[in-house]
Amino acid sequence: MKVSIIGATGYSGQELIRYLLQHPYVEIVSLHSQNQVNVGIGSLYPHLERCIDLNVAPICPETIMETSDCVFFATPSKISRLIAEPFLKANFPVIDLSGDFRLKSAFHYEKWYQATAVHKEWLPHFDYGLAEERQIPKSKHVANPGCYATVAELAFAPLLKNDLIHLNSIIIDGKSGLSGAGKRLTQETHFVEAHDNMSVYKMNSHQHIPEILQQFKLWHPKIKKFQFTTSLIPVTRGIFLTGYAQLKKDIKKDELSEYYDNNYANAPFVRLQNKETFPQLKQVIGTNFCDIGLAINQDTGIVTVVATIDNLGKGSAGQAVQNLNIYAGFPETSGLINCPVYP
Amino acid sequence: MKVSIIGATGYSGQELIRYLLQHPYVEIVSLHSQNQVNVGIGSLYPHLERCIDLNVAPICPETIMETSDCVFFATPSKISRLIAEPFLKANFPVIDLSGDFRLKSAFHYEKWYQATAVHKEWLPHFDYGLAEERQIPKSKHVANPGCYATVAELAFAPLLKNDLIHLNSIIIDGKSGLSGAGKRLTQETHFVEAHDNMSVYKMNSHQHIPEILQQFKLWHPKIKKFQFTTSLIPVTRGIFLTGYAQLKKDIKKDELSEYYDNNYANAPFVRLQNKETFPQLKQVIGTNFCDIGLAINQDTGIVTVVATIDNLGKGSAGQAVQNLNIYAGFPETSGLINCPVYP
Amino acid sequence: MKVSIIGATGYSGQELIRYLLQHPYVEIVSLHSQNQVNVGIGSLYPHLERCIDLNVAPICPETIMETSDCVFFATPSKISRLIAEPFLKANFPVIDLSGDFRLKSAFHYEKWYQATAVHKEWLPHFDYGLAEERQIPKSKHVANPGCYATVAELAFAPLLKNDLIHLNSIIIDGKSGLSGAGKRLTQETHFVEAHDNMSVYKMNSHQHIPEILQQFKLWHPKIKKFQFTTSLIPVTRGIFLTGYAQLKKDIKKDELSEYYDNNYANAPFVRLQNKETFPQLKQVIGTNFCDIGLAINQDTGIVTVVATIDNLGKGSAGQAVQNLNIYAGFPETSGLINCPVYP
Amino acid sequence: MKVSIIGATGYSGQELIRYLLQHPYVEIVSLHSQNQVNVGIGSLYPHLERCIDLNVAPICPETIMETSDCVFFATPSKISRLIAEPFLKANFPVIDLSGDFRLKSAFHYEKWYQATAVHKEWLPHFDYGLAEERQIPKSKHVANPGCYATVAELAFAPLLKNDLIHLNSIIIDGKSGLSGAGKRLTQETHFVEAHDNMSVYKMNSHQHIPEILQQFKLWHPKIKKFQFTTSLIPVTRGIFLTGYAQLKKDIKKDELSEYYDNNYANAPFVRLQNKETFPQLKQVIGTNFCDIGLAINQDTGIVTVVATIDNLGKGSAGQAVQNLNIYAGFPETSGLINCPVYP
Repeated sequence: MKVSIIGATGYSGQELIRYLLQHPYVEIVSLHSQNQVNVGIGSLYPHLERCIDLNVAPICPETIMETSDCVFFATPSKISRLIAEPFLKANFPVIDLSGDFRLKSAFHYEKWYQATAVHKEWLPHFDYGLAEERQIPKSKHVANPGCYATVAELAFAPLLKNDLIHLNSIIIDGKSGLSGAGKRLTQETHFVEAHDNMSVYKMNSHQHIPEILQQFKLWHPKIKKFQFTTSLIPVTRGIFLTGYAQLKKDIKKDELSEYYDNNYANAPFVRLQNKETFPQLKQVIGTNFCDIGLAINQDTGIVTVVATIDNLGKGSAGQAVQNLNIYAGFPETSGLINCPVYP
Repeated sequence: MKVSIIGATGYSGQELIRYLLQHPYVEIVSLHSQNQVNVGIGSLYPHLERCIDLNVAPICPETIMETSDCVFFATPSKISRLIAEPFLKANFPVIDLSGDFRLKSAFHYEKWYQATAVHKEWLPHFDYGLAEERQIPKSKHVANPGCYATVAELAFAPLLKNDLIHLNSIIIDGKSGLSGAGKRLTQETHFVEAHDNMSVYKMNSHQHIPEILQQFKLWHPKIKKFQFTTSLIPVTRGIFLTGYAQLKKDIKKDELSEYYDNNYANAPFVRLQNKETFPQLKQVIGTNFCDIGLAINQDTGIVTVVATIDNLGKGSAGQAVQNLNIYAGFPETSGLINCPVYP
Repeated sequence: MKVSIIGATGYSGQELIRYLLQHPYVEIVSLHSQNQVNVGIGSLYPHLERCIDLNVAPICPETIMETSDCVFFATPSKISRLIAEPFLKANFPVIDLSGDFRLKSAFHYEKWYQATAVHKEWLPHFDYGLAEERQIPKSKHVANPGCYATVAELAFAPLLKNDLIHLNSIIIDGKSGLSGAGKRLTQETHFVEAHDNMSVYKMNSHQHIPEILQQFKLWHPKIKKFQFTTSLIPVTRGIFLTGYAQLKKDIKKDELSEYYDNNYANAPFVRLQNKETFPQLKQVIGTNFCDIGLAINQDTGIVTVVATIDNLGKGSAGQAVQNLNIYAGFPETSGLINCPVYP
Repeated sequence: MKVSIIGATGYSGQELIRYLLQHPYVEIVSLHSQNQVNVGIGSLYPHLERCIDLNVAPICPETIMETSDCVFFATPSKISRLIAEPFLKANFPVIDLSGDFRLKSAFHYEKWYQATAVHKEWLPHFDYGLAEERQIPKSKHVANPGCYATVAELAFAPLLKNDLIHLNSIIIDGKSGLSGAGKRLTQETHFVEAHDNMSVYKMNSHQHIPEILQQFKLWHPKIKKFQFTTSLIPVTRGIFLTGYAQLKKDIKKDELSEYYDNNYANAPFVRLQNKETFPQLKQVIGTNFCDIGLAINQDTGIVTVVATIDNLGKGSAGQAVQNLNIYAGFPETSGLINCPVYP
């Protein structure tokens, strides 16, 4: 299968290259970018020298559709919507890593992304690509979930599906490494400011909130809201999410674990921790895994879910490849069975 | 005023030296340690060369009481209790930075510290040294609060005193730098394991829980429990605490801020953030400040309190000096008015 | 081909697992350790869960030789020599990642490692495994080079082979991440001490000095000495080496580059930087690459060589797999063609 | 004494505030900036809240000269030259932290800074402020040395003054934390790029080269050149400099140490390490110290000098205050006797 990557020079694009190069059934045939074109990707990014031998080309939809079988948009939110039209009109397979096609509601998109949804008619035609919930592709177009959204949804799915918690008690406290903020230079992402620091990034205002809520509602239509804190921690990659909620009834840890075991019995990339342990951030870096640990506070009846992913892996490029596998009918783990880079 | 430090070679001891050297009314007359004795502190710790010219001496209570007016125990928990007796019997002023004299209940001490409370009769005679609540010294003996305890108590005091929250909804999510774990070498504190990582340290089992509860009960006797998660983040110093609770009624952010303003009107080291901003970790490093920011989620009615301290400053040596100032009648800020080391 | 790993629980052992799992012609059949045995490797190291499904077994040479075709010693220096005998006696293929079989001189081994060379008679029978110099295996036993040695040798080979520099002017200034010091807990590798720090590790006393000199002498027998400074920088992985020497005659940068190009024309893992650029540390992390950049100071006639490797990749496990490929006749890059994990 | 700071919002400006606030004889009367004016410095930089209560004002030379006794230019190179004129014409005391007035040669300035030297006539009237060489102020105008220049000069002074080394053998390998690059946002200083990385910053092209050479020539007029490599290491503050040179004759370590002891006998901020030890970076952070360690390689006759400073302390704001003390006749250590922030 031949694929192209638009936005190949961003962090997600580079990580897509890393995963796809080890994929047994996929060949990357072209890389595209808006800016740095007609130069070898290895000249721009010396780490890729000898790993891939392709020039970065301008974005030409016709050529891409001629030479490829599928295109990845590794472009930022608000950009994907501007380049999508020719591919969508031609019903050409697209996996979009941005936030532009995740929300079914154009109203919500415009509110949270503060940009015009130029693509309203296409929104219903995208599969929301939370891979663990999407074993049969319905569409040729996949909206790959956001990094925070992926881990938050995987962390709470069994609690919501099985109606185990008070809906208004959900608190999600997410901490992200700096690559989650992309390559754009900002004061917050300046080394001198971010190193040895921790800071609140967005309080109840992160654009993944409507995306998470949209998915939560599929599992429990009555849910209306949750508390969502996002912070930056001084690491390059990874999201460390701590979720809290009040249990509806007094259940034991073992029973709770069973709900998770059952829900993820066929999910090759969700690893449930052994009892009494919690996932560390590092154990998922460089991979498509989502690791989950659980605790119940017997005194307060509060359940704590600790979940970790690599924001560029399961939170972006890894899951995009997983979605490609599902779309193409490859084994779900093709190209993704690699160990974490540890330590 | 002449002071001595027992445990001068630990991180808290070294930070005490740093603060006391800039104190206008205090002179450090002797440094003591169990191990590395009869050698200049500057030879052991080159950063102290030319800053202080004292040998590390063995722990001899008689000599200390002869030459000093007050002694700091910068010794770890479970050690202070073993060296305290001669000082307490002589009613000599002691400021203990460990956990050994904070809990009024020997039963709780033995449960949470898994050590015999050899000092039961002395427990009632210690002032718990949360400085903002302790303007008049009642005792010559001060139990300096724990780092997590200090910031958790300062974060929740106005909420509890003013009966603003549902008591069983309190969730405290604390993240600490590695110096909080002291100088002891462990797998968790090995650079290769801790760097680029984040991990749960203790889940509902941290020894500061009974200390926090003891103080919370003074503000709201009905409180029985709370959720307490402690994690390690890859920084040297600092605690970043995020606290959550369900508000009892629908109050506005401004009203909430007023409760905090009033509570800390006379607290020179508690800085409330401007509206809509939250404290970053770095802005308190190297100081005795505790910075607090607030948010109310109008959808869920959950209040979020973000509070930061330097675990070696307000969380240990800084507050110990503040407690010395209160005891000795010095201005509360003596020796402590220094800027953060930023960036 | 079936292989076993002794010392599978150390950092090099874990990295061997990572590389070998993606090797098309190799199967790991057993993992061995002195301590943590009869437990799944995934229980000990959660990052390996679902990546490999093997228990850690005790070290039983007979079983290993029955079930495997080759054994890796990922054991520390001074340990390999104690477990090697049965394998060597049986002339069983061994790739040793430690320093125990690298020096041809038992005298030098005993001087620099301060340990008895219990294996003197075997020393001549080991191939020194600097892979770029070793295309034809002469022995079934390979002594895999040290991390500093690998990068120092690759950096200076063209200068020495072509007699371009004054021999007594060589200065090697190496900086290493903390994983180079292994899993052993020390004050220097404690997060609180190593983070935000840089320190001299060994000055002219590193045990890789005789190993480097032994190889340098093969290229230029007259060399007798060099200056060698090793320091620790606060990263997990990687060696950043800066080498200096006085050029014998006034040559241009292009001519110098040609010497390097020629020397590494057939070396798939040595990447020479484009003119005027130098390799960054990160661009080799997670890989078997050694990246090299060059500068000539026209004023002083000093050549500067900047070279970077991943100490656990080309400096250890990566090169060990490369040596396996050479031994077994696999393509040299089998299992090693993976992108750096960047950023 | 009343002082003003122009450029108060940069890293050096903020560090000047930190030092001056603890100075017994100095009062900061005004802060100035080109951009963020008429707002409390504590609103801009929350870490300064309650430490200093001043608004940031526009740059008005007349007002500054009326209300202050001395002005600091904590402005970047190429900016100081544009604001200096009114102060210089009025012969008002100026301490400039930038590179604009350090070089006596306008030709060299224009070559290395690629900017017009608008101030040629003033260059001879500036004291070059390497404080250890400047006990008697000759001018009211001080050009505070660059960070790399300070540590390089202090490291090599005894070698050059005493004619101990071959002049063409000098190699200076400097590593700097990211704050050395200032607040300007660049790809190199983006957290994601700089963290876990090390990279060459400038090879034989750093603008401190002519400044160092100018000072070296005062000590040994025959020196013409040296090798100068500057790299970035992933820390916020600090320069770790390793200097190498070939000794002219075979001298012992003790004799060499004596030269350094003698040279720095009256230098309160230069600390020579005990034998066989080298300074770590962290032991000077937050201070005005320069720590120096020495080694002689008996095999090669190469001397190694390891020296560390805080680039914002001795390398900038700290030395600026030291220069103020010298100018004003205060004790040289006033306001500067503070411990490192360690760990």
